[in-house]
Amino acid sequence: MIESLKKSSEKSGLPPGSLVHVGAALETVTRMSVIDYSKENIEEQQIQSVDEILKYRDSDTVTWVIIEGLANVEVVENIGTMFDIHQLVLEDILNTHQRPKFEEYDDHLYIVLKCLLPEDEKFTVSYQQISLLVLTNFVFVFKEKTDNLLYPIQQRIRTSKGRFRSLGSDYLAYAILDTIVDQYFILIDLLDNAITSLEDSLLASEATQDSLVTVQRLKREVINIRRHVSPVRELTTEMLHSESELVDEKTRMYLRDVSDHVMRVTESIDSHRDILSGLLEIYISGVTNKMNEVMKVLTVFSSIFIPLTFLTGIYGMNFEYMPELRWKWAYPALWFAFITIPAVLLVYFKKKKWL
Amino acid sequence: MIESLKKSSEKSGLPPGSLVHVGAALETVTRMSVIDYSKENIEEQQIQSVDEILKYRDSDTVTWVIIEGLANVEVVENIGTMFDIHQLVLEDILNTHQRPKFEEYDDHLYIVLKCLLPEDEKFTVSYQQISLLVLTNFVFVFKEKTDNLLYPIQQRIRTSKGRFRSLGSDYLAYAILDTIVDQYFILIDLLDNAITSLEDSLLASEATQDSLVTVQRLKREVINIRRHVSPVRELTTEMLHSESELVDEKTRMYLRDVSDHVMRVTESIDSHRDILSGLLEIYISGVTNKMNEVMKVLTVFSSIFIPLTFLTGIYGMNFEYMPELRWKWAYPALWFAFITIPAVLLVYFKKKKWL
Amino acid sequence: MIESLKKSSEKSGLPPGSLVHVGAALETVTRMSVIDYSKENIEEQQIQSVDEILKYRDSDTVTWVIIEGLANVEVVENIGTMFDIHQLVLEDILNTHQRPKFEEYDDHLYIVLKCLLPEDEKFTVSYQQISLLVLTNFVFVFKEKTDNLLYPIQQRIRTSKGRFRSLGSDYLAYAILDTIVDQYFILIDLLDNAITSLEDSLLASEATQDSLVTVQRLKREVINIRRHVSPVRELTTEMLHSESELVDEKTRMYLRDVSDHVMRVTESIDSHRDILSGLLEIYISGVTNKMNEVMKVLTVFSSIFIPLTFLTGIYGMNFEYMPELRWKWAYPALWFAFITIPAVLLVYFKKKKWL
Amino acid sequence: MIESLKKSSEKSGLPPGSLVHVGAALETVTRMSVIDYSKENIEEQQIQSVDEILKYRDSDTVTWVIIEGLANVEVVENIGTMFDIHQLVLEDILNTHQRPKFEEYDDHLYIVLKCLLPEDEKFTVSYQQISLLVLTNFVFVFKEKTDNLLYPIQQRIRTSKGRFRSLGSDYLAYAILDTIVDQYFILIDLLDNAITSLEDSLLASEATQDSLVTVQRLKREVINIRRHVSPVRELTTEMLHSESELVDEKTRMYLRDVSDHVMRVTESIDSHRDILSGLLEIYISGVTNKMNEVMKVLTVFSSIFIPLTFLTGIYGMNFEYMPELRWKWAYPALWFAFITIPAVLLVYFKKKKWL
Amino acid sequence: MIESLKKSSEKSGLPPGSLVHVGAALETVTRMSVIDYSKENIEEQQIQSVDEILKYRDSDTVTWVIIEGLANVEVVENIGTMFDIHQLVLEDILNTHQRPKFEEYDDHLYIVLKCLLPEDEKFTVSYQQISLLVLTNFVFVFKEKTDNLLYPIQQRIRTSKGRFRSLGSDYLAYAILDTIVDQYFILIDLLDNAITSLEDSLLASEATQDSLVTVQRLKREVINIRRHVSPVRELTTEMLHSESELVDEKTRMYLRDVSDHVMRVTESIDSHRDILSGLLEIYISGVTNKMNEVMKVLTVFSSIFIPLTFLTGIYGMNFEYMPELRWKWAYPALWFAFITIPAVLLVYFKKKKWL
Repeated sequence: MIESLKKSSEKSGLPPGSLVHVGAALETVTRMSVIDYSKENIEEQQIQSVDEILKYRDSDTVTWVIIEGLANVEVVENIGTMFDIHQLVLEDILNTHQRPKFEEYDDHLYIVLKCLLPEDEKFTVSYQQISLLVLTNFVFVFKEKTDNLLYPIQQRIRTSKGRFRSLGSDYLAYAILDTIVDQYFILIDLLDNAITSLEDSLLASEATQDSLVTVQRLKREVINIRRHVSPVRELTTEMLHSESELVDEKTRMYLRDVSDHVMRVTESIDSHRDILSGLLEIYISGVTNKMNEVMKVLTVFSSIFIPLTFLTGIYGMNFEYMPELRWKWAYPALWFAFITIPAVLLVYFKKKKWL
Repeated sequence: MIESLKKSSEKSGLPPGSLVHVGAALETVTRMSVIDYSKENIEEQQIQSVDEILKYRDSDTVTWVIIEGLANVEVVENIGTMFDIHQLVLEDILNTHQRPKFEEYDDHLYIVLKCLLPEDEKFTVSYQQISLLVLTNFVFVFKEKTDNLLYPIQQRIRTSKGRFRSLGSDYLAYAILDTIVDQYFILIDLLDNAITSLEDSLLASEATQDSLVTVQRLKREVINIRRHVSPVRELTTEMLHSESELVDEKTRMYLRDVSDHVMRVTESIDSHRDILSGLLEIYISGVTNKMNEVMKVLTVFSSIFIPLTFLTGIYGMNFEYMPELRWKWAYPALWFAFITIPAVLLVYFKKKKWL
Repeated sequence: MIESLKKSSEKSGLPPGSLVHVGAALETVTRMSVIDYSKENIEEQQIQSVDEILKYRDSDTVTWVIIEGLANVEVVENIGTMFDIHQLVLEDILNTHQRPKFEEYDDHLYIVLKCLLPEDEKFTVSYQQISLLVLTNFVFVFKEKTDNLLYPIQQRIRTSKGRFRSLGSDYLAYAILDTIVDQYFILIDLLDNAITSLEDSLLASEATQDSLVTVQRLKREVINIRRHVSPVRELTTEMLHSESELVDEKTRMYLRDVSDHVMRVTESIDSHRDILSGLLEIYISGVTNKMNEVMKVLTVFSSIFIPLTFLTGIYGMNFEYMPELRWKWAYPALWFAFITIPAVLLVYFKKKKWL
Repeated sequence: MIESLKKSSEKSGLPPGSLVHVGAALETVTRMSVIDYSKENIEEQQIQSVDEILKYRDSDTVTWVIIEGLANVEVVENIGTMFDIHQLVLEDILNTHQRPKFEEYDDHLYIVLKCLLPEDEKFTVSYQQISLLVLTNFVFVFKEKTDNLLYPIQQRIRTSKGRFRSLGSDYLAYAILDTIVDQYFILIDLLDNAITSLEDSLLASEATQDSLVTVQRLKREVINIRRHVSPVRELTTEMLHSESELVDEKTRMYLRDVSDHVMRVTESIDSHRDILSGLLEIYISGVTNKMNEVMKVLTVFSSIFIPLTFLTGIYGMNFEYMPELRWKWAYPALWFAFITIPAVLLVYFKKKKWL
Repeated sequence: MIESLKKSSEKSGLPPGSLVHVGAALETVTRMSVIDYSKENIEEQQIQSVDEILKYRDSDTVTWVIIEGLANVEVVENIGTMFDIHQLVLEDILNTHQRPKFEEYDDHLYIVLKCLLPEDEKFTVSYQQISLLVLTNFVFVFKEKTDNLLYPIQQRIRTSKGRFRSLGSDYLAYAILDTIVDQYFILIDLLDNAITSLEDSLLASEATQDSLVTVQRLKREVINIRRHVSPVRELTTEMLHSESELVDEKTRMYLRDVSDHVMRVTESIDSHRDILSGLLEIYISGVTNKMNEVMKVLTVFSSIFIPLTFLTGIYGMNFEYMPELRWKWAYPALWFAFITIPAVLLVYFKKKKWL
């Protein structure tokens, strides 16, 4: 299903500046965790109130705040006030119908994109909007759901002795982006499998009305995925060429890498779209082919037996003056016809390759 | 129906400089209302003549004039004279077949776009052209119809204590644009519903000739909506990058937001167009599929009974020398054939998956 | 029909610099008229020789020369010599297979485009190439046909007291362009009607082989119109951004307006092309639909009567030992079968929605 | 047939710098002719060895060398050495699978493009690669075949008193380009004819399997022509904007003209491609249409006679107790049925427009 | 099969900086060979350890190291440390799912692309990723497989007296690129053959379900080839315009040549894609055509014999009062009907061109 765009209807009548959560609330509770790290130390905790972050504000360590669940609008509001975030950014964080984008403000960067995860084997995709707010020593991540998507990064921070923990908040932002983009590859793999197996069944002429439903469902899903993934390349490119001091020269290299990955995903989606768009024609070809076969059987049967039945009809007539009826060899002669006529027709059909 | 383009035929023969209302007159009466506001005060009234605006001309307050109904050409003419508006702008306001555009003049900005509203459940869309004329302390809105489209903004002005009323005419223009673009989202939602339900009925093979009519009607409507919506993005981008002093730096942020919204609408329309364009193929697939089924029934019936009828024909002949006719077990033997031949054929058809 | 491109074959062997009329000569006689006007005076006359223009060459008035019919090559040659026009321009004027374009020379501008007029109700379009040569105080218009296309402009010059006659040759050129572009709108209106009525008949399944011919003819016509109209936008944009002193700052505003009109025409043509390209599919859908219906009738008839005929066949056989033939109730019992079998089948077909 | 690209396989294993002729050798002999001209004099001769050109090297006259047939690699090698031509240019001249391009070197320009000539009435196109090497006072033309393609230019040089012979080698290069591009127009004319007649036969439902072959052949040819023609526009534009002193300011005007011509050809090819791509659908429509007609005849025949045959079957049964058989009016009554049933059905089919 | 993109799933959980081989390991052993050459000398050897390269590091000769098989991660790691290569480059070398690209670093260039080789006659393509690392006097080539792809270049180095061996590492990189691109031409040739023979069989109506499979397989292969080849043009262009001192001015000429070749390959692929995409329609046309023929045979047979059978049915009835039965000429008269009715119908069908 194409994710609906109910933004306006939900929010109409409210002034543009008021903070409201727009979109389906995937979690009722808001869970906040903080990881504060420097080359030497690491501190992790669950927090209940935004105020607990305050103490990290003026330290030199990188502080990573993960907010899971957007139902609690106040959390976003408080962070906005505390770190002086632009009103429109706060609104965008709470509206889960955003187009992926990168926005540069004086002292913070705003990144929003979708995390796409396959939900079951029928290739149903779940969408989660993820917002990143990057400040000098802070990264805020706003997620719609509580899951372990970012767990590998947390693990790396914990175990990394040197490299990761010595880099700034921009590198952390890159790592998060990279993790999300990596999920796209898994999705594409599954899509590839789904399309290939559908294609095989269509080419084997095992198509049913169900195949049609699957083709159409995949088509919609691919259109949808493309819509959420392709702007990510723009996002990374803009971040790559951003003149903000928040993006370090060294990190740019890594962003170029992510950008390449998104490019590969997009090209792969396009390839799949091309293939999908041809499948309906293959389906029609298959059905037409089968119909042709059915027609041939009908024609062979009819063409053989209809003339014979006509012959029997003739000698079933009750005319008084039908000399043949009294001939001794008439009936066997007719049997000869009953055998040769089909034989001739069968040879003819054979030659036409209908058999 | 694609909105017709009868501009030239209606106006031909007249000099380009003469003001005439071109397009269907949706209202016979012209209704004018004025809202004049500053941080402290707000004044609202209905006016009968353009002269009543004069008094606001030299004040510092923002004056918002809404003109509903374009039948009265003099109103536009008078405003043009009073505020020194370019002749071509006045013509464009009165010609309701404009392409959305943004034009920058020395001391005023001209914005024209379409408001699209769904009219009924069959997804019929009504189009209304809305022109905005933005001056230093003035915003003129020219609408074709009297409706409550802008009511939420009026309400916000009335209730807003601080923010809205302290911002200039450019912010008011943004708010109007935002309201119109928000309507597009509602439209897209409805379009999504219409297409989804059509798709479902097609995939369930419940298609009739009517479905074909609906597909074609939606296709036309989508082409039409796209034509009116996609230039709005250009419009907002041009306004965003305009060097006019009339557009404040702060307002640009908000314009970028509107621009993003239009982008999302356009992408969504394109997605829907892609899906729609595949529906006709699904329809044909469905019909072909059904035909195949019909053919199978015909073939099964014919192939079973035509050979049997031939058999009965043989023993219905009146030859004198047909020894079988006198055999005692001939008739039961034939009944045996009448049962085994169909059985064999049914197994064959079963194997071919025709049953 | 796509206008043929016989340029080369007609002209091959001749040096590029020789002036020859290339294309079908639509008029055998060349008719020349001159309108010389300033704010105060206006002078109109038919002339026989180009020399009669000479006297206006050094005056300050705007002189508009209309040449209708291109058979007389000398006329173009003389004007070329008299006003020092580039050889290639003269060749282009005489070759009526030009692509619309704007060319800037040191002291003259060359504009060439097509005027498209519908010829009859079957949407046959006539093409006329119109060349404009704009000099400081001169506008030459070269037309292929004698018609009243430019009559409204002449009328405006005659009646206009102030405005028109006080503006230069560039404004006159704009007025001519605007008049030609206005004709495109009329054409688009007719095209819209033609397509809508075709679409209606296709959707009502009243399609015949003729509809196919019409679809294809309209398709060709649309492709053709697009080819002649879409470069006009380029033309106006180039003229708009031309650095020539011949284009006044005030006139640019008006050119932007024409450019917008051409844009609208082009977008409208594209919309129509989209719709047209779907019509063939609708036609095929319709035909397939009808075939399906025919098949159903055949199948219902055959499936009902073939088994019954088999039954009658059985009891038409002449075996001596057929006990049923002597049973008293056999015949009525069979009639019972003759009625119940079709009834059952009809219910079955009803359930399958074939009836 | 798409011209094959056997470059690599033919040449693999050889160092890139070795001169080999790649492609089919269309001529076994290499024919060289020289035309040396200035405003006053003209000298023409056939030469056997490249050394004979030497004497013109330091004169001020324009020397045009035409080499027809590329089998003799030494000729190209010698010219390369004599005039210091880049190794890659020499290789490109000998490899007849080039993409049209313009290359600028310090003291020479290299132009390569294809001359397309229709070979027979079935629209088979012959391709000839033509390379131009333009130096200050020299133009070398390398052709694959000996033909009279450039004869008109030679004739013009001979007869031209002033203009042509007073212009430099760049004008000669332009004249050759113009001649080649002019051939494209002839080709397009023929293509237009071929497509139109094909379209007419398809629309008249006279389509056979042959039409399918023709559609596909034309499609391939159009794809192929486009591939060879469209880069020529790029070529002329690059030459037009080249900063080389070898291209005179005056010649640029003429190049712009050629560029426009190529543009027209390309647009025309695109139009034809659009039309062609719709023809297959028309073919399918036609075949489906015909099938529909066949089906109707079958259905009408079957639906009329099958019920009647059933009726005769009933009274052909041999039951002892069939009272109707003895009724006097039974047989005539049945005849009444034999006439009214078909009549009723025919009216029904008429109403359904099947007849 | 579209090459899968299992990057993320294989590597997830690992820190981005860790070197792992991602992709199928095509060779289990890593084979390393070194060719060190200057104008005068050449030295060739197989090496076991990277340390053996060390001695060439500070010499002026060009050293070419070929690493075949990527299973041994340490080799890449050691080279990285020894020559100070960026971590991301090392990762990219080991991940064989790269998109072709050119990357410029301070003192080295990184080029990665795919070598495409046809594997069998059924047009199965094998993909091998090849990475080039270009330093001042070093070229490292990382290949997935041990094959003789680069043998011709080695041979040229051995035999070349002057030219090749006097040029730097950039020329060697060019030669390798050129060799890989040359393989594309061979592939395109084979593709052309495959498509042409498929097309011929489809046009000859010899299509079977297998043809459908082949069309789809080729389509996928073409999509896939395009995806790997088209970015190579970008790669060469970027290298061509690179400002790195590692690319010599003379080498740029040659890179432009390679770029042109890739362009030709890409255009050729696009042409083939166009043709392929039409083949499915031809297939459907063919099947529909055949079905039409089958239908005609059925209709002709049925239409001729069904009325005749009806006639025999009439005179097979057992009514007592059927005067015709006793007429002497009734039976011969009926035979007259049996002959004339089919004759008339055959003429009718002939006229309709069904025979």
